Amino acid sequence: MSSWGNAVKISIFGESHGNGIGVVIDGLPSGEKLNMEQIYLQMSRRAPGKDKAATPRLEKDFPEILSGVLNDTTTGAPLCAVIRNTNTRSQDYGNLLTKPRPAHADYTGYVRYQGCNDIRGGGHFSGRLTAPMVFAGAVCRQILERRNIRIAAHIASVGNISDQRFDGVNIPDELIDRLSSAVFGLIDPSAEPTMRRLIEDCRKNGDSIGGTIECAIVGMPVGVGSPMFYGVENVISSIVFGVPAVKGIEFGAGFAAAEMRGSQNNDEFYYDGNIVKTRTNRHGGILGGISSGMPIIFRTAMKPTPSVSIPQNTVDLSTHTDTTLEIHGRHDPCIVVRAVPVIESAAAIAAINLLAEVHKL
Amino acid sequence: MSSWGNAVKISIFGESHGNGIGVVIDGLPSGEKLNMEQIYLQMSRRAPGKDKAATPRLEKDFPEILSGVLNDTTTGAPLCAVIRNTNTRSQDYGNLLTKPRPAHADYTGYVRYQGCNDIRGGGHFSGRLTAPMVFAGAVCRQILERRNIRIAAHIASVGNISDQRFDGVNIPDELIDRLSSAVFGLIDPSAEPTMRRLIEDCRKNGDSIGGTIECAIVGMPVGVGSPMFYGVENVISSIVFGVPAVKGIEFGAGFAAAEMRGSQNNDEFYYDGNIVKTRTNRHGGILGGISSGMPIIFRTAMKPTPSVSIPQNTVDLSTHTDTTLEIHGRHDPCIVVRAVPVIESAAAIAAINLLAEVHKL
Amino acid sequence: MSSWGNAVKISIFGESHGNGIGVVIDGLPSGEKLNMEQIYLQMSRRAPGKDKAATPRLEKDFPEILSGVLNDTTTGAPLCAVIRNTNTRSQDYGNLLTKPRPAHADYTGYVRYQGCNDIRGGGHFSGRLTAPMVFAGAVCRQILERRNIRIAAHIASVGNISDQRFDGVNIPDELIDRLSSAVFGLIDPSAEPTMRRLIEDCRKNGDSIGGTIECAIVGMPVGVGSPMFYGVENVISSIVFGVPAVKGIEFGAGFAAAEMRGSQNNDEFYYDGNIVKTRTNRHGGILGGISSGMPIIFRTAMKPTPSVSIPQNTVDLSTHTDTTLEIHGRHDPCIVVRAVPVIESAAAIAAINLLAEVHKL
Amino acid sequence: MSSWGNAVKISIFGESHGNGIGVVIDGLPSGEKLNMEQIYLQMSRRAPGKDKAATPRLEKDFPEILSGVLNDTTTGAPLCAVIRNTNTRSQDYGNLLTKPRPAHADYTGYVRYQGCNDIRGGGHFSGRLTAPMVFAGAVCRQILERRNIRIAAHIASVGNISDQRFDGVNIPDELIDRLSSAVFGLIDPSAEPTMRRLIEDCRKNGDSIGGTIECAIVGMPVGVGSPMFYGVENVISSIVFGVPAVKGIEFGAGFAAAEMRGSQNNDEFYYDGNIVKTRTNRHGGILGGISSGMPIIFRTAMKPTPSVSIPQNTVDLSTHTDTTLEIHGRHDPCIVVRAVPVIESAAAIAAINLLAEVHKL
Repeated sequence: MSSWGNAVKISIFGESHGNGIGVVIDGLPSGEKLNMEQIYLQMSRRAPGKDKAATPRLEKDFPEILSGVLNDTTTGAPLCAVIRNTNTRSQDYGNLLTKPRPAHADYTGYVRYQGCNDIRGGGHFSGRLTAPMVFAGAVCRQILERRNIRIAAHIASVGNISDQRFDGVNIPDELIDRLSSAVFGLIDPSAEPTMRRLIEDCRKNGDSIGGTIECAIVGMPVGVGSPMFYGVENVISSIVFGVPAVKGIEFGAGFAAAEMRGSQNNDEFYYDGNIVKTRTNRHGGILGGISSGMPIIFRTAMKPTPSVSIPQNTVDLSTHTDTTLEIHGRHDPCIVVRAVPVIESAAAIAAINLLAEVHKL
Repeated sequence: MSSWGNAVKISIFGESHGNGIGVVIDGLPSGEKLNMEQIYLQMSRRAPGKDKAATPRLEKDFPEILSGVLNDTTTGAPLCAVIRNTNTRSQDYGNLLTKPRPAHADYTGYVRYQGCNDIRGGGHFSGRLTAPMVFAGAVCRQILERRNIRIAAHIASVGNISDQRFDGVNIPDELIDRLSSAVFGLIDPSAEPTMRRLIEDCRKNGDSIGGTIECAIVGMPVGVGSPMFYGVENVISSIVFGVPAVKGIEFGAGFAAAEMRGSQNNDEFYYDGNIVKTRTNRHGGILGGISSGMPIIFRTAMKPTPSVSIPQNTVDLSTHTDTTLEIHGRHDPCIVVRAVPVIESAAAIAAINLLAEVHKL
Repeated sequence: MSSWGNAVKISIFGESHGNGIGVVIDGLPSGEKLNMEQIYLQMSRRAPGKDKAATPRLEKDFPEILSGVLNDTTTGAPLCAVIRNTNTRSQDYGNLLTKPRPAHADYTGYVRYQGCNDIRGGGHFSGRLTAPMVFAGAVCRQILERRNIRIAAHIASVGNISDQRFDGVNIPDELIDRLSSAVFGLIDPSAEPTMRRLIEDCRKNGDSIGGTIECAIVGMPVGVGSPMFYGVENVISSIVFGVPAVKGIEFGAGFAAAEMRGSQNNDEFYYDGNIVKTRTNRHGGILGGISSGMPIIFRTAMKPTPSVSIPQNTVDLSTHTDTTLEIHGRHDPCIVVRAVPVIESAAAIAAINLLAEVHKL
Repeated sequence: MSSWGNAVKISIFGESHGNGIGVVIDGLPSGEKLNMEQIYLQMSRRAPGKDKAATPRLEKDFPEILSGVLNDTTTGAPLCAVIRNTNTRSQDYGNLLTKPRPAHADYTGYVRYQGCNDIRGGGHFSGRLTAPMVFAGAVCRQILERRNIRIAAHIASVGNISDQRFDGVNIPDELIDRLSSAVFGLIDPSAEPTMRRLIEDCRKNGDSIGGTIECAIVGMPVGVGSPMFYGVENVISSIVFGVPAVKGIEFGAGFAAAEMRGSQNNDEFYYDGNIVKTRTNRHGGILGGISSGMPIIFRTAMKPTPSVSIPQNTVDLSTHTDTTLEIHGRHDPCIVVRAVPVIESAAAIAAINLLAEVHKL
């Protein structure tokens, strides 16, 4: 299913080489002014070939809004945004999958849809489908900002090269400003050249590299989320795994907490004026599934782009024999960079639904 | 929300010191014979104080089935199972929270429910609420076994002591048999003494220790799960984070994939007779959210039990001042051991819903 | 599915002759004081044999609350209430359906559940399952009353004997008080003797009779409900058809509107002080799926009780031949009387979910 | 919410005078061939001004399919179809509602969306939004026909002029063929002139008239639907009330059953060869919420079009005073005619979801 959400539902549609892709967002509050430049900015952060670009403006891929917005303000009716594909379908195209690419959804999609799914460019599994998610996220985060909730993510690592981690108890506004508009977002920009060299090395070798993204939701009020199955972790993870290449997620100390003692992992409470805070934030802003008022922090593991130009072994589904495959064409050697605004967007859509559940939207 | 699922919905209820706890399972297929001894066995694996026990039988905590089963066979109507609490409510109990315990849900629950939640023994946040989840899981896994789908988990690590990992391409039935009935489940039992010493050391020091659990779903047919938001990862993670103390989840190579190159991480396809398989299983049996036919493998990070007897700093919510807290009583120094069948149960409930979506239940 | 609701979910379980029946209500606001006498009262209105009773107290069928309530106040955790069955299962019972009763769910349930459903006393299809719905409704209506929303229904007709209709623009509090505690609720009590004579006549003849129930939700604020599929009509009808014997529902003028001209049916707006009202209420308090602030009014058609003692033709499923059937035992000749509080309860559960959607709960 | 469905979800978007309207259908089975001419035909039956038209082809309003279809075959990915509006938004438009039209959603929408909803042409409440529903229905009914399930509806009445009713035990294929492609669908065509005269009379007088629609779903297998809240009646009514102007629904004998005795209303079973049937169909093909194998039959009450040109009293929301209103322009004096394919479409979308629940899709 490509639909997600309760109070605010998104329904994403499209295939890489079909007529168009887009999203319907149902349940948005009415009367929310949308800053279209901000939406442009977010979408351009995800757009291919934007990494070094000077202008945040991206005409080609900007969605047309078909409904739900009047005078740049949400009407409360479902908002539909469509991005046309320029790579439109050719009539003589066979759509015949013979050699599934390793680590892609070719084989599993083939079985799931009995060979009928559109395989051109990955079809509905294409990373291109994250564009409407970024659009939806850009809409949601404007609504969240108006409620003093801000979201920022950064490239936490590329291969074995790491950025700093968020200081979980103090994430300054300037850092959020900087990261949430960055194309190669790092807390410590000094890691950039090393990361770029690693990525460039992979590209030259026809290979790719994985990485991690760390995301913070700052300003979430205390008491959001419900125990058991509508906890903050459940809700965020259930949308974040919708981002291609995500193979893991951890909140707060996450897997590191599994090696700690309770005396090391517990975060002590204290009063900062009238506000209850914790002196450390290994709990990632979530206790018992419910927000604590501290920044919500999570990290995602992104596998390396499966498209590598090195010859690989695979099968031939038409002849039922083993074979080899060479993938041609240019591919992103490190999807992590462009995935940063996608993860932020997933977090924003999750956050708006969590707020609605407790009537704080 | 303590309800989860689409085709097969579970609704868990109860508080640690209320009259009873239990679960309603709605949407089970009719005509499924239930082996009650097997349910006893699974529940006893989770029960406190069972670790060294000789008998799998546990009368006290065994649920009464109120509905949905006739002659040990599911009727298709909702199955409700209730476990009475023996620690029943005292009339004069104040239910007043003053000092929230660090890393517990005391503070967040207090805000979420405006001080009205039952705090005795953790109330609805108590680990005791995993008992009905194990019951539901034990029912579901019997139905899955009849469809040749089996589930097993083990203690992958306690602190820095690790068990072996599953061999992702070959998980023998005997291993599944052994693990799915074990109380201290390990692939390599030689790790047990060291793990026990570490846990005992924590107990003596009034401290606790975290760990990880690795779980495998074997026999899931190819083509289960849907792209984007109803992928196998989304569905499993959205229920697994309902298990207390889980702070992270990873599928297949997970976070390790984030350090790999594509050429290292991609799993090559080959024909094993007429069946498409992969020679390695870094994808954890899931590509594009859809099962590949290889074992589905995931690991969860469990934080250390928050209840430590060492004095901790916290706040006094009645006086709005900082204070200290000493937690008395006996607590499980390592929740990982008893959480193994809970994780298996979450996996079973997820699996049955995933199968139903593609009409394979 | 016996689960319903979004913000406040109910999950009803049980079979007529199983161990027990009940309901889990998940998502109730915390801190809501429950008046148990009021819950007794509502349940006794539905209870069999209560029609002429002097006392509203009914010990036998009163549910035990297992969770979600502490000191008579909701904790915010799922509320589970259980009613034990005294007619418990006999071990030697065959559960074999051979002659499906006309107009009952015997045949359809047999096919749906492949002969595995508990057929004793109707099993999960039994009218007895409306008891937990009345419990849930009684809880919800107390919460609604605290928000000045009140619900009352009456026997609008039995066979061809009619009560008055609600005056859609003026439903006084005293009428609501009277109806919402009545056992044979009529706006105009003078219809009672005639109705009773008709019912008695049916009973004597081993027959039964249908009727209609009219229900009003008074005090619902303007602007509740959403266009298309979460309109007030959609939500109410989707739960009301869960009440056995309901075969139709109409809002406001309903089917009568289908014979009117627009000039007759349209309700004109006017200002009553600062409040926009309509002078008539043929729209039933709903325009475009959204509440108008006028009383929400709907009527349900209840078919006659299918259990009649007159011999009927049916089939023998074991021999695949036509046969005849005589149903013995005492049956309610007119289910309408006892269904009144059930319809009110469905309306209350619907209303609480509608309010939550627009953050007015 | 403008989203509906579980296994097959529709998400309808658009406003009457926005850029476009459409629908996303998520969860369709893959590999379903779509006959585009049949979709044209269904959409033209609903299109304005088509009543007397000779050609079923309607270019202007035909949707562009953006995704989910390749070589006229469903891919399994979400199908998005968009219809452009030619009446696009003017920049200087004020969107200011002052005089809400009686019986329209103007006032309730104004409060619901705090004056931000697009009111031009009814906005999201416009009857124009039924076009995407007919598109979705046309897709679903082709899939249903392949499973031998057919749907047809007819104008059961206009004002007090009635057509015949369906013979509930025998609905011949030729009748279904004729009705499901008719523009003014009647079982007995002799009623047409009288109905047309009544409609014409209303038009001349600036008035409108209501009516009823009867719909049959033929070929639904036995055992579809679930007790309580996912019964066939619940599911159908929850979508049918999404069709503008519907104010009532009844299944089988419906409100007439409320005047019957059990001995009159019960439908007797018999064997027709090996198939269990009923000799009459007052149960409307549904017992206990579950299909009986007999035709599923329901009727909806449609209120008269609220737009009448006769002067009406209303309020002025800007001055808080009472006022009068004259509605100009051409309006459909009887919406029933064009609503017939919309009701059929709602039934088709409901049916496909009901089938999926029991794995019969």
